[in-house]
Amino acid sequence: MGLEVLNHIRIVLVEPAGPLNVGSVARVMKNMGLSQLVLVNPQCDPQDVQARHMAVHGRDVLDGAARVDTLPEALVGCQRAVATTGRIHPQSQGLDTPEAALPWLLPVPGQDPLTTALIFGPEDRGLSNEELGYAQRWVRIPASEGYPSLNLAQAVAICSYVLHRWALDSDLAAPLPTIADPPAALDQIEGFHQDLEAILLKIGYLYPHTAASRMAKIRQLLHRAEPNSQELAMLRGVLRQVNWAVGQYPRQP
Amino acid sequence: MGLEVLNHIRIVLVEPAGPLNVGSVARVMKNMGLSQLVLVNPQCDPQDVQARHMAVHGRDVLDGAARVDTLPEALVGCQRAVATTGRIHPQSQGLDTPEAALPWLLPVPGQDPLTTALIFGPEDRGLSNEELGYAQRWVRIPASEGYPSLNLAQAVAICSYVLHRWALDSDLAAPLPTIADPPAALDQIEGFHQDLEAILLKIGYLYPHTAASRMAKIRQLLHRAEPNSQELAMLRGVLRQVNWAVGQYPRQP
Repeated sequence: MGLEVLNHIRIVLVEPAGPLNVGSVARVMKNMGLSQLVLVNPQCDPQDVQARHMAVHGRDVLDGAARVDTLPEALVGCQRAVATTGRIHPQSQGLDTPEAALPWLLPVPGQDPLTTALIFGPEDRGLSNEELGYAQRWVRIPASEGYPSLNLAQAVAICSYVLHRWALDSDLAAPLPTIADPPAALDQIEGFHQDLEAILLKIGYLYPHTAASRMAKIRQLLHRAEPNSQELAMLRGVLRQVNWAVGQYPRQP
Repeated sequence: MGLEVLNHIRIVLVEPAGPLNVGSVARVMKNMGLSQLVLVNPQCDPQDVQARHMAVHGRDVLDGAARVDTLPEALVGCQRAVATTGRIHPQSQGLDTPEAALPWLLPVPGQDPLTTALIFGPEDRGLSNEELGYAQRWVRIPASEGYPSLNLAQAVAICSYVLHRWALDSDLAAPLPTIADPPAALDQIEGFHQDLEAILLKIGYLYPHTAASRMAKIRQLLHRAEPNSQELAMLRGVLRQVNWAVGQYPRQP
């Protein structure tokens, strides 16, 4: 996909009361590539100094935020909406995890993006049943039973992150490569081990009858690290210098 | 698994300066089932009224936070550590996503939990290269190129959420390499690196002005191999013998 699909998702905050939260929401939206913030009947001034302070470089998101009076107004033109809740509702249609529900706000590859919304409730009470009813799907962020109630901005951060990850990489299961340089060739590593063995015999760390088993342990360790060519060259440099040094240093009295 | 495995993970904040952040971190840790907070040389009072206000029902995490002077002290007894960074390092071995690296802090099912740490840098500068060097793996939270710098508490929220999800549902877990012996403690590995640096300076492989960058590469390599205690003892034996040998061998003509 690409992060531009995130511009079609509205983050809707219903009656937010904390300027710190609204500012933090703007910042993390900007971090995650989201740009459309909608405030429904805000109970604080989003241009408050605290909000602007927390937004840092996300102030453009704050400045561009739409203000509306009701949740239905915030959803005008949207084709899909997901609402968040911290409660377990007895008559619920079932609550999804963010990973299960949020990709549904992103376009199917090859299709035009939908206009969608992700709705968060007020800090003190969360979304009412009536407000939840405006969304097609409900998300509950998995959390500890002892204290499941997340700060509003933290909840937005986690959901925004999940959206960002899906927009970047719709195949989340595939682990990303972690080693920039390709691993060194095995024959080069073996050559290093042979030189190492010769030096360790020379300096008396290895004895001929124990060398094989001890070298096997060293091999295991280095193979596990999977050194690249540069790293192997570095290890060879260390070895050369040790070899030089043991011939250079004066015998101690 | 179960959320109790999260009690073995230390959340380490290096020089946090914002009481709002420290309080928010405590709250989201409690939300996600994490309990061990370690503050390294905090630049604010974690009992400040703002911190306590933001922590809400996570105040017990705040009250139980350990305070230490240095990052190595925070890692004493830890077997694995992951550091977070917002920067792209030119000579880096590669930065992992949270999904790729953080499960590595959780135990392999059926094995005893390891003691592990997840490290976050100061709000203004993040972790230095030296501080990153204390961890075996580095995580960068994927974010928009236009503004990749997350608020500290938001970064902790996202990482804590990923840990929580994996602890809840180990079906998500990718197969991890099994290591028969538990990994050596990080403070022991650090001790080895310091002895190694001293010898490499002595034999002229390192020069004082290049030692830090070269040692960083060696650290990366060894951290990747994740040596166990026996292997570390073996490496120490090699080092002792090299040290002995450079003092014993006759100077060549």
